[in-house]
Amino acid sequence: MKSYRQELWFHALTRRAFINITPQVEECLRVSGIQEGLCLVNAMHITASVFINDDERGLHQDYDDWLEQLAPHEPVGKYRHNRTGEDNADAHLKRQIMGREVVVAVSGGRLDFGPWERIFYGEFDGRRRKRVLVKIIGE
Amino acid sequence: MKSYRQELWFHALTRRAFINITPQVEECLRVSGIQEGLCLVNAMHITASVFINDDERGLHQDYDDWLEQLAPHEPVGKYRHNRTGEDNADAHLKRQIMGREVVVAVSGGRLDFGPWERIFYGEFDGRRRKRVLVKIIGE
Amino acid sequence: MKSYRQELWFHALTRRAFINITPQVEECLRVSGIQEGLCLVNAMHITASVFINDDERGLHQDYDDWLEQLAPHEPVGKYRHNRTGEDNADAHLKRQIMGREVVVAVSGGRLDFGPWERIFYGEFDGRRRKRVLVKIIGE
Repeated sequence: MKSYRQELWFHALTRRAFINITPQVEECLRVSGIQEGLCLVNAMHITASVFINDDERGLHQDYDDWLEQLAPHEPVGKYRHNRTGEDNADAHLKRQIMGREVVVAVSGGRLDFGPWERIFYGEFDGRRRKRVLVKIIGE
Repeated sequence: MKSYRQELWFHALTRRAFINITPQVEECLRVSGIQEGLCLVNAMHITASVFINDDERGLHQDYDDWLEQLAPHEPVGKYRHNRTGEDNADAHLKRQIMGREVVVAVSGGRLDFGPWERIFYGEFDGRRRKRVLVKIIGE
Repeated sequence: MKSYRQELWFHALTRRAFINITPQVEECLRVSGIQEGLCLVNAMHITASVFINDDERGLHQDYDDWLEQLAPHEPVGKYRHNRTGEDNADAHLKRQIMGREVVVAVSGGRLDFGPWERIFYGEFDGRRRKRVLVKIIGE
C-alpha cells in the first residue's frame, strides 16, 4: 500500500469564499503515483469546508445567501461562542451544513468523478492563511 | 490491496425520491471478495445524495417536507443558479444537507452496520438516469 | 494492509449531548499500530452523529439551539415518523445536519489534525447505550 500526504494553503481575502481546488488535488494524485485507492480531502480548520458541487458562480452566490439565512453572521452577540472573544460562531455552523471533507475514489490514476463534480474549499472565516489536507492511500 | 469499482444506475420517475440501495451495495461487496476494508458510496451527480438512515416511509416524507422548507424548489426565480436556464438550484442545496457520500467499514466480508443502518440514494432532481459510484478497497 | 476494528459505547444521560471522543479514537489508533492510512469513525445509530469541530462549551450550546431551531423536537405530532410510536423524528433530521461519520488521515501513527480539530459524538436521542464504530486501515 502506498500513501501520500500534502497540505494545500489558501488565503481568502474575504470572510466567505468558495475556491475550486480540483487542479491542486489532481496534481497531488499525479505526484502520488497512486492508480487505485481513496483520496481524502479535508479542511484542517473548523470554520471551513471541503465539498463537491458545481463550478457555477450563481450557485455559489445561492449557497452564500442560503447559509447566511440558516446561520446568520449577525448579530454576533447572539452566539455563546462569540463571548469567548470570537465573532465566527456562524462559520462553525455553516461548515457543518457544507461538510468537513470529501472522499473521492481513485480509479486508473484519476479522480473518479461524475460529469460536473469539482472539489471546493469553502471559507466562512477568511482573511488569513488556512490549510486543506490531502491524503491518498492505495496502489 | 484489492480494489473494486462499480457504477449503479437509478432512474427516479419523480423529481424527488429516496431509494434503498443497500442490496446493490451488498452485492458489489460480495463480488469484490474484499473481507476487510472501506467501502465508499457516492452520488456522481451534484443534485443527488447518498446517505445512511432508517428505511421508514414516514421518515422519508419528513425529510422531504423538511428539505423543502429549508431549501424550497419555488419560486425558481429566486435562485441565481436558475438564471442559467436550470430549475434545480434547490436540489444543489438539499444535497448539501443530506451529503454526497458515505464511507462504510467492511468487516468479515460484510458492511459493518449498526442495527438500523441502510444506504439510500436521495434524488432531488430526478426524471432521468443518474449514477452512484461504489469503490471498495481492502483485502 | 492492516485493519483494525473497535466499537465504543456511550450512554448520554440527556436526550441531547456532545461528547469529545478524541482520546478513545487516539487509543484505538495506538493499539492498531497503523502508521499511515485512514481512520473511519461513524455513529452506528441513525439518531446520532460523529463530527469534528471545536471543544468549546459555548459553541456546543449554539449547535444545540441552532439544531433545535432547524428541526424542533416538538410538537412531536408534526412528524410522520413519530406515528410509528417514536418521538425521535427530529433526531433523524439533526443527525443529517451534523453528519454520520468522519474520515481522518493517519500520518506518522497519529490522527492528522489541524490545530483545533477534535472528534465528537453527537447524541440527539440519548438516555440509552449507543455505539460508535472505529475502523482503521493502512500500514
